[in-house]
Amino acid sequence: MKTVGQSIKRVDAYEKVTGRAKYTDDLILNRCLFAKVLHAPIANGIVTSIDTSEAEALDGVVKVVTFHEVPTHTYPTPGHPWSVEQSHQDVADRHLLTGRIRYYGDDIATVVAEDEVTASRALKLIKAEYEEYPPVLHPRDAMKGSSPPVHAENPDNILAKSGYEIGHVEEALLASDIVLKESFCTPMVQHCHIEAPISYAYMEKDRIVVVSSTQIPHIVKRVIGQALGIPWGKVRVIKPYIGGGFGNKQDVLYEPLNAFLTTLVGGRPVKLDLSREETFANTRTRHSIEYDLTAGVSKEGKILAKDMKAYSNQGAYASHGHAIAANGATAWRHMYDVKNIRADAYTVYTNTPVGGAMRGYGIPQFCFVSECLMDDMAHKLSMDPLKFRELNLYDGYFEDPVLTPIAANTNGIRECMRRGADYIHWEEKRDLYKNQTGDKRRGVGMALFSYKTGVWPISLEISGARLILNQDGSVQLQTGAAEIGQGSDTVFTQMAADVLGLCPEDVHIQSFQDTDITPFDTGAYASRQTYISGTAVKECAELLREKILSYARTLISEEYKDRELKLSEKQIWCGKESVLSLEELALESYYSRSSSSAITSDISRQIKKNTIAFGACFAEIEVDLKLSKIRILDIINVHDSGKIINPQLASMQVHGGMSMGIGYGLSEQMLLDEQTGRVLNGTLLDYKLPTAMDAPDLHLDFVELEDPTGPFGNKALGEPPAIPPAPAIRNAFLNATGVAVNEIPLSPQRVFQELRKAGLV
Amino acid sequence: MKTVGQSIKRVDAYEKVTGRAKYTDDLILNRCLFAKVLHAPIANGIVTSIDTSEAEALDGVVKVVTFHEVPTHTYPTPGHPWSVEQSHQDVADRHLLTGRIRYYGDDIATVVAEDEVTASRALKLIKAEYEEYPPVLHPRDAMKGSSPPVHAENPDNILAKSGYEIGHVEEALLASDIVLKESFCTPMVQHCHIEAPISYAYMEKDRIVVVSSTQIPHIVKRVIGQALGIPWGKVRVIKPYIGGGFGNKQDVLYEPLNAFLTTLVGGRPVKLDLSREETFANTRTRHSIEYDLTAGVSKEGKILAKDMKAYSNQGAYASHGHAIAANGATAWRHMYDVKNIRADAYTVYTNTPVGGAMRGYGIPQFCFVSECLMDDMAHKLSMDPLKFRELNLYDGYFEDPVLTPIAANTNGIRECMRRGADYIHWEEKRDLYKNQTGDKRRGVGMALFSYKTGVWPISLEISGARLILNQDGSVQLQTGAAEIGQGSDTVFTQMAADVLGLCPEDVHIQSFQDTDITPFDTGAYASRQTYISGTAVKECAELLREKILSYARTLISEEYKDRELKLSEKQIWCGKESVLSLEELALESYYSRSSSSAITSDISRQIKKNTIAFGACFAEIEVDLKLSKIRILDIINVHDSGKIINPQLASMQVHGGMSMGIGYGLSEQMLLDEQTGRVLNGTLLDYKLPTAMDAPDLHLDFVELEDPTGPFGNKALGEPPAIPPAPAIRNAFLNATGVAVNEIPLSPQRVFQELRKAGLV
Repeated sequence: MKTVGQSIKRVDAYEKVTGRAKYTDDLILNRCLFAKVLHAPIANGIVTSIDTSEAEALDGVVKVVTFHEVPTHTYPTPGHPWSVEQSHQDVADRHLLTGRIRYYGDDIATVVAEDEVTASRALKLIKAEYEEYPPVLHPRDAMKGSSPPVHAENPDNILAKSGYEIGHVEEALLASDIVLKESFCTPMVQHCHIEAPISYAYMEKDRIVVVSSTQIPHIVKRVIGQALGIPWGKVRVIKPYIGGGFGNKQDVLYEPLNAFLTTLVGGRPVKLDLSREETFANTRTRHSIEYDLTAGVSKEGKILAKDMKAYSNQGAYASHGHAIAANGATAWRHMYDVKNIRADAYTVYTNTPVGGAMRGYGIPQFCFVSECLMDDMAHKLSMDPLKFRELNLYDGYFEDPVLTPIAANTNGIRECMRRGADYIHWEEKRDLYKNQTGDKRRGVGMALFSYKTGVWPISLEISGARLILNQDGSVQLQTGAAEIGQGSDTVFTQMAADVLGLCPEDVHIQSFQDTDITPFDTGAYASRQTYISGTAVKECAELLREKILSYARTLISEEYKDRELKLSEKQIWCGKESVLSLEELALESYYSRSSSSAITSDISRQIKKNTIAFGACFAEIEVDLKLSKIRILDIINVHDSGKIINPQLASMQVHGGMSMGIGYGLSEQMLLDEQTGRVLNGTLLDYKLPTAMDAPDLHLDFVELEDPTGPFGNKALGEPPAIPPAPAIRNAFLNATGVAVNEIPLSPQRVFQELRKAGLV
Repeated sequence: MKTVGQSIKRVDAYEKVTGRAKYTDDLILNRCLFAKVLHAPIANGIVTSIDTSEAEALDGVVKVVTFHEVPTHTYPTPGHPWSVEQSHQDVADRHLLTGRIRYYGDDIATVVAEDEVTASRALKLIKAEYEEYPPVLHPRDAMKGSSPPVHAENPDNILAKSGYEIGHVEEALLASDIVLKESFCTPMVQHCHIEAPISYAYMEKDRIVVVSSTQIPHIVKRVIGQALGIPWGKVRVIKPYIGGGFGNKQDVLYEPLNAFLTTLVGGRPVKLDLSREETFANTRTRHSIEYDLTAGVSKEGKILAKDMKAYSNQGAYASHGHAIAANGATAWRHMYDVKNIRADAYTVYTNTPVGGAMRGYGIPQFCFVSECLMDDMAHKLSMDPLKFRELNLYDGYFEDPVLTPIAANTNGIRECMRRGADYIHWEEKRDLYKNQTGDKRRGVGMALFSYKTGVWPISLEISGARLILNQDGSVQLQTGAAEIGQGSDTVFTQMAADVLGLCPEDVHIQSFQDTDITPFDTGAYASRQTYISGTAVKECAELLREKILSYARTLISEEYKDRELKLSEKQIWCGKESVLSLEELALESYYSRSSSSAITSDISRQIKKNTIAFGACFAEIEVDLKLSKIRILDIINVHDSGKIINPQLASMQVHGGMSMGIGYGLSEQMLLDEQTGRVLNGTLLDYKLPTAMDAPDLHLDFVELEDPTGPFGNKALGEPPAIPPAPAIRNAFLNATGVAVNEIPLSPQRVFQELRKAGLV
């Protein structure tokens, strides 16, 4: 009857396929007002005057609000746990609306109207005048200072910097046989979740309720409190089903503004949904990061030292800020056994759209550059890149030298590599593709990665769950962790069912989170649900089981009372004998005249553990030199994510992530106008997200080493699949053409430029 | 800072006054289907044929269902706790639809359509033919047997009978100086809550969700499971704000049918709301009960023996059944100290609308006849009725001789009587109105009553509550008990606030109940909320306080750790020193890196206690003989309900109840056609509910003896106010005219008949 490890059907499959599943927009009641935001048409400057009188006079306009009328509290937006220590708190640099414009499209005013068309028309009637400054769009430019700085508090535009040195990097570089220095650049990309950010807010008594498509309901609650300067208990956030997030909804977006607007219209419901264009320009992006890397190797192929300088383009507001660049600097210490390591990371304010969380949280950028470097070093050594990696990988357990207890409690990276190589026929192909000529050339490439599962000890990990035993022996399960399409409801159902000896159909999970009711959990981010929230679910189920068995002792006959009891198949067992059915027990617990008490368990746990997941990607590509086009012939991700709870759901995660990684490697990039800072391709027509037509067949495999710290032997899988495809493709391109490209995406334009530079076209 | 005992504003006042509060109909989303029920136009018979083809062919009709297609499970409807013992289970005599018609309007088919008009039109296209039997409308007729019986299982139509004898009634009657025998009849009346019963149902995964205007969400869940023959865990019931219930919604009405209908249309939402006419004819009524009473008194005025025969008209289905008549038989043992008591109660099926729960649950009927009897005995003894009662009342504590632990733990009845008499100037007025002539005559009358607070040990008492400490030191409170307008949300808020040292604004009560989430409680009925659910709220708050203080010990400095800590004014106190603020503690509990765990308490408690409340009504009336009209000149209810939690809310309860009691005494009665059994006045135009124009100024007083079993010294108040006005008015009429009327309402028609019989007009 155990289902952990089995591909049970998603618990929300039928709901989603039939269209019954309720998303935010499905829940909005009649007579809702509509809000629209006025975005500034400059990237840097101030509003010198704003006249809303014509907009206010328009029939159907209920309220016009400008930056003059919003609360003066600054607030942070990232989906991080709050901290009671100021040094751990996020940077609070936002207002609900602003007169100091920091990027093209910054929010200066809002209209609330009876209908959407009126709101849009009213926006056009607001007359604003601006004083404009030249925008600064690149981090290394911005670090030189700009006048004025993006935020007055940071005169050098550096939001944060951090660094470390382990061993003696300079000395080791001097002692190296070969020293390689390279520069890389990763693009600004967008999450492109199906459902654009949407929320609606209304008042209930003296409190504000916000229904939002978010990954982090409990954090949205807190930030609304901070933004409006009201006690956090006066805010209630409800999260229905959501159409994807990928980290963009791990940020507090327009919910605080929406919350504020309802307070201005007597608590009437106000809906604020974003267009796709706004989603591109006004929500969050994956940080574009520039890197300078240096590595020293011995001629035998042992890496003696490595140094990284990262310059992360934060854009106009702090959001997740330095955590992204810092995450790469941390991963720089993992996977490869290098004694002398240095990293310096800078996160820099510029006048561009804001960088935030996105699947992989800095590691797709870092992994791209780090794994390019690996191939480039191997290339320079004339070594096989796989062998070069083998020579430098940690064997088995290792731990982070700085952040305890982050460790590779199990380490399947070598097995992942072996399986990937076998699948792609690595040695044969490397051999085969050695001396190609002609217009079409093929190559195989690879990339490895490591990935932390949760956020401890960098941030707090806390999670909760609640179970209620029903009269029929089934249970209701509530978790604070949010189902965002990743399938957490299904794996939690499997986990609870296994502990309680139920079939999954008997676990009724509550998919919506409601901060008034739902156990506290910081939300769906990192790759923490199955690991952290899974731990809470398991403990909660264990507590319920304990309560059930202890109640059973009051009901069964004397002879069994002091013997060990077990719960499975909806029966209480003493040895091989069923002594009571769970349904009888449950009915008794509700309705016994002698001793009734509904059996529930409700837990909240801080979870101080973390573990490292691994994986490899192997890709075979064909480059059409004349068209400058890359075609993926074959690709496989092999993951060491510990025990796989639900192989089919896990495969879907991998497919989705690989597709995202392929887009990152080949086609996706938000383009900004260099003069105005405006997003040039902020629609799904112009932004080149791979479609089903563009995706090759996606292959995958799992190396299932059971992690002792995972509640069921599991570790991170949510984000990892998106990490390695881009460098694997780039390294395959190197294999095919001999050309090392240090910037993605490898779009036809860039490939053409690089091939031309190399004299191949 | 304590607010128990103070008139804080209703917590939902603003919501309700502004129209923001969400009722069932406010929550229905777009694209909801509409269901309408086809009611049979005969009171007794069978459907011989039914043709739905034309209805099905109508454009917009989605589904037509007849009694042929519904599940064959019978189910009970009353809002009683279930029992694991079959002998305590309610009578299951219903199907969702029926071909055996038992009352005029019985449900034979349903139409589900895209809109309401189409559903109504389709009903008219269903062609049904009937075989009709003569209806039997009165219990004593029905007891003689009918052919066929209303239910085949009960050939004599007697649903239940019960009786007891304490002492030796016949002997004591023989030894009495005066023996009085009287017959009485009480009318069928309806609750007339503002919001007619309404529900909508849809499917979520493989489960059915029903949103309903009900007093008993957890019981509705169970009964839907029983009616559809599905596991109870497959049903979820949500209760929003409701517009009154008064016991009618302490019955499962059309929710099971609605739940069934959504399963037939692929889980699409189906709304089923009733018209006012349907509410009268097809929901529940207050039982009409006929009584034969006999009493023997000594010439000194001591009651030596009393005997009651009660014949309760159950109507067509069991619903709350015999519990109503039995409740009066129990109360017959209370309040007056009589050594020889007998009661025999019969509950009889007839072909009339169904009797169910209604505010007072059989006691308004019983109290009317019992207090008429008291006055008539006093009259016969030529004694002052107040003195006669004084002579026979228990002094202080007494307990029920049969049902332990029902007892008058405090007894303020004599003080209630004294205050009422003082208010109305009893002695002066009795003297003044002795020898009246003329067309307008005045009188004063009184009635006393006793009332059990909860249902233990007749039924199970179980209740639960859950509290969550917010980051700002405020709390969320969830209760299983349902706010139905009576103000329970407000008094629970006060209770939790007092225990936790918070102000009520810091207690955020969740008004909606959701059986998937809400702590288990059987619902809003009896007068149990403040007493039973209040006990759960208090214990839950005490547990939360304990957890808060124990967490506080981990945070405060060593010197305080072993000393007693207290929580008040959002501070943790050690003696007179504040050692920590609750907000600091709360923030720490969520976000401490060393030890965080959100603090919650979640309890479910069986509560094995009960206590008796008391009260008196004094009325002064003027009878216009020529118009046969009674005008109330003055009226007061004085209640011993223990400690009053919120005097203003309590006063509103008393006002509402008195108005209901006045309607019962003077104007309300559902009239049935004697031939067809059809309700003749089932609209608010024809049914004479007193309006604001009809109500006199209502006066009240409280005798606040603190009950040791009440969580805050409180006992029943919800239902009691409706009990005594009718007999007080009838006794005032006796005082004014010398005419003893043994049937209510004292409508002009009846008054005229009685005055004419007495030769006064």
